[in-house]
Amino acid sequence: MTSSGSALSDEEKLDWLRLIRCDGIGPISFKGLLESHGSARAVIEALPEIARRSGRALKLPSEAGLRRELQAMAALSARFVAVGEADYPLSLAAIESAPPLLAVWGSLAPLSRPMVAIVGARNASALGRRFATVMASELANAGFTVVSGLARGIDEAAHSATVSNGTVAVVGGGLGHIYPSQHEQLAKDITATGCVISEMPFEWVATARDFPKRNRIVSGLSLGVVIIEAAARSGSLITARLALEQGRELMAAPGSPLDPRNDGSNKLLREGAILVRHASDVLEALTPLVERPAPPPRPVQPRFEFETREPETAPAPPSASTGDPDQDRLIAVLGPSPVAMDELVRASGLDARRVQLALLELDLSGRIERHGNGMVSLLYAGRPN
Amino acid sequence: MTSSGSALSDEEKLDWLRLIRCDGIGPISFKGLLESHGSARAVIEALPEIARRSGRALKLPSEAGLRRELQAMAALSARFVAVGEADYPLSLAAIESAPPLLAVWGSLAPLSRPMVAIVGARNASALGRRFATVMASELANAGFTVVSGLARGIDEAAHSATVSNGTVAVVGGGLGHIYPSQHEQLAKDITATGCVISEMPFEWVATARDFPKRNRIVSGLSLGVVIIEAAARSGSLITARLALEQGRELMAAPGSPLDPRNDGSNKLLREGAILVRHASDVLEALTPLVERPAPPPRPVQPRFEFETREPETAPAPPSASTGDPDQDRLIAVLGPSPVAMDELVRASGLDARRVQLALLELDLSGRIERHGNGMVSLLYAGRPN
Repeated sequence: MTSSGSALSDEEKLDWLRLIRCDGIGPISFKGLLESHGSARAVIEALPEIARRSGRALKLPSEAGLRRELQAMAALSARFVAVGEADYPLSLAAIESAPPLLAVWGSLAPLSRPMVAIVGARNASALGRRFATVMASELANAGFTVVSGLARGIDEAAHSATVSNGTVAVVGGGLGHIYPSQHEQLAKDITATGCVISEMPFEWVATARDFPKRNRIVSGLSLGVVIIEAAARSGSLITARLALEQGRELMAAPGSPLDPRNDGSNKLLREGAILVRHASDVLEALTPLVERPAPPPRPVQPRFEFETREPETAPAPPSASTGDPDQDRLIAVLGPSPVAMDELVRASGLDARRVQLALLELDLSGRIERHGNGMVSLLYAGRPN
Repeated sequence: MTSSGSALSDEEKLDWLRLIRCDGIGPISFKGLLESHGSARAVIEALPEIARRSGRALKLPSEAGLRRELQAMAALSARFVAVGEADYPLSLAAIESAPPLLAVWGSLAPLSRPMVAIVGARNASALGRRFATVMASELANAGFTVVSGLARGIDEAAHSATVSNGTVAVVGGGLGHIYPSQHEQLAKDITATGCVISEMPFEWVATARDFPKRNRIVSGLSLGVVIIEAAARSGSLITARLALEQGRELMAAPGSPLDPRNDGSNKLLREGAILVRHASDVLEALTPLVERPAPPPRPVQPRFEFETREPETAPAPPSASTGDPDQDRLIAVLGPSPVAMDELVRASGLDARRVQLALLELDLSGRIERHGNGMVSLLYAGRPN
C-alpha cells in the first residue's frame, strides 16, 4: 500500500484496477500480494506463476473492458480513489477488507466529514421513514455525513432528507447499474453535493451476494450505524454485525414489538445496541469518536465473508497435498471454525511471514475462507461454493 | 412482627388496625414501635407518652370509624391480611415499607402465585393496549399473576385480559372508593377470581400523593415490572424506580420515539431496563427468580417517600433541642441528603438500637424523612410540607 496521503500515478492506478478486477482476487489477497511483491505491476508480472502454483485461472481483465470502464467513468466525471490516497476515508481504510479502489461519482467533500450510517427496512413503515428523515436531517445539520445503501425505504428516506447537505450512497453493483432503477434520479441528485460509490466494475449488475459486501463499506465508512426497522434475518442485521466487527458504534431505534419490522432492531437492542430516540442520542455516542483514529476491529466471531470467489472452480479436496510443505502444514492445523493468525503461527510452528504467504496461496487456490479480523477457516470440497 | 405464617387473633388484628390508622404512623414507624414495645396493644397504651415526647397529636382513630370500616369490609366479604400471616405475600413482606395490613377484596389465590406487574400510560395508544393485552394473557397462561393499578389505559388492558385467570388490582384509595369510578364494574369482575387490595382506610378518597404509595405495593408484590408506554415524568416511572429500589426486575416495551408516550419507557431502556418484546422475554427474566426468596433491596439512592405525614403539623425547626440527647446527636449528624442507618451509627457513636429508637421518635415528631432502603434525611421547617 502507499503511505497515507500519497497519490498513485495514473499508471499505478491502472495496474491496481487491472489486479483488483482479476477474478479470484479480493481486497485481502490484493493487499497480501501487493505486500509480498512490492507493487501491482510486479504482481501482474508474476501472475502466471501465482496462477500455476495455486492451480487457478486468475485471468487478468481484458484491456478492452478496462478501457470501457475508464471511458464510462470519465463520462460521469467519476474517479477512482485508492486506499492510502488523501481522498480515501481513513475510517474505511481501517477495515481489514478495505476496497483497494473506490469508484466515486460526485463530490468527494462529504467523505472528509465524520460519517454515520442510517440503514433499515426496504418495506419501511410511514413512521419508520419519518423517523429516518428527521434523524438524518438532524445529524447532517450537526455536521455528519449520512451514509446509506440507496435501497428503498429507510435508505431512501435518509438520503432524500440530506441531498442538500451532501450524502454518500454506497451501491452493490457498478455505477453504471444503479439498483433499484427507480433511484437513478435520486443517485444523480445525490452527486450534486454528495457522491455515489462502488467497488464493483462499472457495468456490474448486483446480485444477492454483493449486498453484504456493499454493507461492509457502508459501516466501514461510518463511526456508527443507526438501524431503523430491521426485520429478523434482514440485510440491516448484516450491516449491524459488520459494524460490530469493525469496532463501530451500533445504534438502533426502538419500535413496537407488534410490528415485525422491528423484530431485528429490538433484538439488537436486547443484545446491547445503543437505543437512540433522536439525533442527540447519536451525537452523544459519536461525538467523542470524531477526530480520533478509527478503532481496531473488535474480536467478534465473524460470520461473513467478502472475498469474491470464483463460482465455477471447485476447491481442491482438503486432503490433497498442495505440493508446498508450509501450505500442507497449515491445512493440517486448520478446520471449519475460523481461527486467528497468531493461533496459526503457534499451531504450525511457522513464522508469521511464512504463514501469511502460505495463506495467500491457499486463498488464491480456494482452499481457505477469509473472515473478518484476520480469521481464516478451511474450505471443504463438499461445501456449497 | 409475628413469625412467618402465624395468624393474628381478631383482637390483635384490631389493635394493628387501630395503630396503623393513627395519623402520623406509617408502615416503617409501625414496625419500629411494634419492635420497641412488643405488641400493638402495648404501643397503644404508651401512645399518650409517645405523643407527649414527640410533640405530635398521634390521635387514635375513633371506635365508630373503625366499626364502620369493619362493617363495610364484612359487607364485601373483604378481609385484612397482616404481614407475617400465611396469606400475606412474601414478596411484599420483603420491602421495607410493607403495609402492616392489606385490605383484600376477592380471592386470595392469585397472591400465592408468582406475580408480575404490568403498568403504563393512562392515555395509552391502541397499539400499547393491544401489546398489554397480549403480554398479560400470555404471562397469566404461563402461571403468573398479573398485578396492576386499576388505572385507565395499560392497567385496564392488563387486568381485563386476565380477569378469568385471577388478577390483582392495587388501588390508591380505600376499597369503598374505587378510582376511576368507571372501573367499579371491572373491580367487581376482578374479585370473582382475583382481588382488589388497598392499605388505606375503606372510605379513603385517593389524592395524587397516594399513587406513589400504591405503586410501591404494585412493584413490591411482583418479581418484576413491565412498563408499557410511559411518558416522561409519568407515574409509571415512579413504579420503575421503586421496582429497582426493591431489587425487582425492571422491564420495558420499546416503542417509536416519535410517540411521546414512549419517552419514559425508551429512556428506561437506555438506562438498562430489560427490553421485552413478548411474554417469553419476561419469562426468561423472571422464571429463574420463582421459588427463590425475595431479593434484598438494592442500594439505590431513593427519591420517594412513603410515610403518611400529618400535613397540619409544621415540623419543629432543626436547631431546636428535642430534649433527648440521642435525638439531638442524630439531628447534628443528619442533613438534607439521605444517609444509611450504619452511617448514622458510625457518625453518632450510638449503637444501632439507640439510633433506631431515636429515629422513631424523630420520625413521629416530623423531624426526619424516611426514604427506601433504611435511608433517612433531616426535614427542615422551611420545606414544603
